[in-house]
Amino acid sequence: MLPAAVAAMSDALGRTGNASSLHSSGRRARREVEEGRERIAEATGARPSEVVFTTGGTESDNLAVKGIYWARCTADARRTRVLVSSVEHHAVLDAADWLVEHEGARLRLLDVDATGRVRPETLRAALAEEPDGNALVSIMWANNEVGTVNPVQELAGVAHEFGVPFHTDAVQAVGILDVDFAASGADALTLTGHKLGGPYGAGALLLGRDVDCTPLLHGGGQERDVRSGTLDVPSLVGLSTAVTESVAAAPHRRAELAALRDELVRAVRAEVPDAVVNGDALDAVVAGGPGRLPGNAHLSFPGCEGDSLLMLLDANGIDCSTGSACTAGVAQPSHVLLAMGADESTARGSLRFSLGHTSTRDDVAALGGAIGSVVERARRAGRGAPAAVTG
Amino acid sequence: MLPAAVAAMSDALGRTGNASSLHSSGRRARREVEEGRERIAEATGARPSEVVFTTGGTESDNLAVKGIYWARCTADARRTRVLVSSVEHHAVLDAADWLVEHEGARLRLLDVDATGRVRPETLRAALAEEPDGNALVSIMWANNEVGTVNPVQELAGVAHEFGVPFHTDAVQAVGILDVDFAASGADALTLTGHKLGGPYGAGALLLGRDVDCTPLLHGGGQERDVRSGTLDVPSLVGLSTAVTESVAAAPHRRAELAALRDELVRAVRAEVPDAVVNGDALDAVVAGGPGRLPGNAHLSFPGCEGDSLLMLLDANGIDCSTGSACTAGVAQPSHVLLAMGADESTARGSLRFSLGHTSTRDDVAALGGAIGSVVERARRAGRGAPAAVTG
Repeated sequence: MLPAAVAAMSDALGRTGNASSLHSSGRRARREVEEGRERIAEATGARPSEVVFTTGGTESDNLAVKGIYWARCTADARRTRVLVSSVEHHAVLDAADWLVEHEGARLRLLDVDATGRVRPETLRAALAEEPDGNALVSIMWANNEVGTVNPVQELAGVAHEFGVPFHTDAVQAVGILDVDFAASGADALTLTGHKLGGPYGAGALLLGRDVDCTPLLHGGGQERDVRSGTLDVPSLVGLSTAVTESVAAAPHRRAELAALRDELVRAVRAEVPDAVVNGDALDAVVAGGPGRLPGNAHLSFPGCEGDSLLMLLDANGIDCSTGSACTAGVAQPSHVLLAMGADESTARGSLRFSLGHTSTRDDVAALGGAIGSVVERARRAGRGAPAAVTG
Repeated sequence: MLPAAVAAMSDALGRTGNASSLHSSGRRARREVEEGRERIAEATGARPSEVVFTTGGTESDNLAVKGIYWARCTADARRTRVLVSSVEHHAVLDAADWLVEHEGARLRLLDVDATGRVRPETLRAALAEEPDGNALVSIMWANNEVGTVNPVQELAGVAHEFGVPFHTDAVQAVGILDVDFAASGADALTLTGHKLGGPYGAGALLLGRDVDCTPLLHGGGQERDVRSGTLDVPSLVGLSTAVTESVAAAPHRRAELAALRDELVRAVRAEVPDAVVNGDALDAVVAGGPGRLPGNAHLSFPGCEGDSLLMLLDANGIDCSTGSACTAGVAQPSHVLLAMGADESTARGSLRFSLGHTSTRDDVAALGGAIGSVVERARRAGRGAPAAVTG
């Protein structure tokens, strides 16, 4: 967490007060919540009334996908198609799957190109298959595994050609890329605290004022009646501090992280020349912004199992990830790499290195020093294993 | 918050780590989560695998009511009746209403007696109306407004006579009353951090291992796949510390709070002799435990508007509440008092005083010193207002 966010939150933790209550301590809590809401709105190009506080990315994604779906098909029973990219986070994919199994939805997965990007013409063609049957579109701002950035403004424009609301999971983007809710044209946008130096358990759904969304959590009627529940004031104070700080620092951090990331890729490829960078080119640019998250390096190591690499690097004190963290421990190749056209063995032999505000050149140097012998050991282990004989 | 919970949480805030990740910091976070789960289980008579972490009471209630409903009527389409007491928190009532409006459920509200209690025979008669049509029963352990405690073990037993799962919102009970999940017979039990000296935004649903429950939030598959989402480790550390501490201190606190509450009632009635205590008798006992929350005093002041009293007391630095905090600001009489048989004017002229671990005899003395003139002023205002002329 950012030190300023920790300080603001620890300070707020010492106070008490239920933001829905009328008495003085409640009013003070309410004021802190509303100030936080205004700060988040200002930093993200939204109106304060468009900031719906949630407990994080999973809840925001579920609320947007299910809530907009319910509202849309209640208004027009024909609109049961849910269009989501095939590389979404599981919070979007699994919510959409549940709507299919349980609520009569039809899922239309959108293909991505080899870099992991949804092309506007792909979305247009899918919407045109049944112009009156579409409930919503959900396409992430930037992919959490390979870092590919989508042309959100164009995609939202295509959805609106068909009168369909557009949601984007911008968990990876806010605080790093230029995210302006109004300018993007999105109807709903997910952000979460712990990806931008704020606390776990605090996030928001930016939700256009004219977008109907059925609540997931019913009760006290907080948050425009879209999200009931006692507000977690200290966490929201931490969240708004982190959003403000990370957005202000983003232009500088972008350059810094991209330089460090490029150095990481150079260091790895100096030791492992056949390592392959997945996703878009390192210096790619999409619609005026970067085409790839600056802090993301995603590499395939031919002949290696990602889990072996991860364990060996961990023994060297280096954190990295196979697939997304949420599915770690489950021996499945990344659905993102498979959707991009990778074969299973390439998908399994891939690692994501994420650079953040605590990453240093020393970390990169440590990785460069370890990666050669780690990959060699993982390859020897791979050759000894039955799977590699046939692979 | 309890100082120990603040300390444990602030300490955890300084560390990082995603409890779903495989690397070392992730494993440490996972260990903290599992230790917290074991401590909560031990304090509440549950198994560790029965503790599903959520973001609080509203989410736990929505998850239990909707999730068990969905699972039950997926298994047997006839089972669409949802039986809830008429004095439940809005998180239960509004979730049930939504199931009726949106998911084909039928709501059967259970009457309470004049003290606000659901009698076992009331539940039995309601279940018998359509023995094969019941999906679930939800009855709170103790009422948040008037403090009345329900005979949970008996009620759960009646539900099981009909093979129907039983959920109880025990938000007001854990850390004050003796709450033993296994002994209670409940299939699901809601608890939340901020009611027992823990953080906002952290709670749990205790969920029997054989109880089917459809998730509200889909995604990474955390928490037995019942509740996806990145775990908020610092908050869960704060929650488990607060549960352990408050449960250990409960026997002592119960006696202390009851004595303070009795003193408060005496002090108020010395100044306002016609004030009426709502709910059960102060010394009532239900099934071996207290029949009323020890820290709850709920009083009606004939001829007064509760909101006027609240504002005048607030001006004297005294926090109290009309209705539940969640609906404060909305000029509606309490649904709890109405369900207990109170008329509208009595319901409007009522206040709840909640005593907690920061309450002192000085607070009670301050209320005793202020209440006489506050009530007198509120009565004068009431007589001058048009509504009172006809009332």
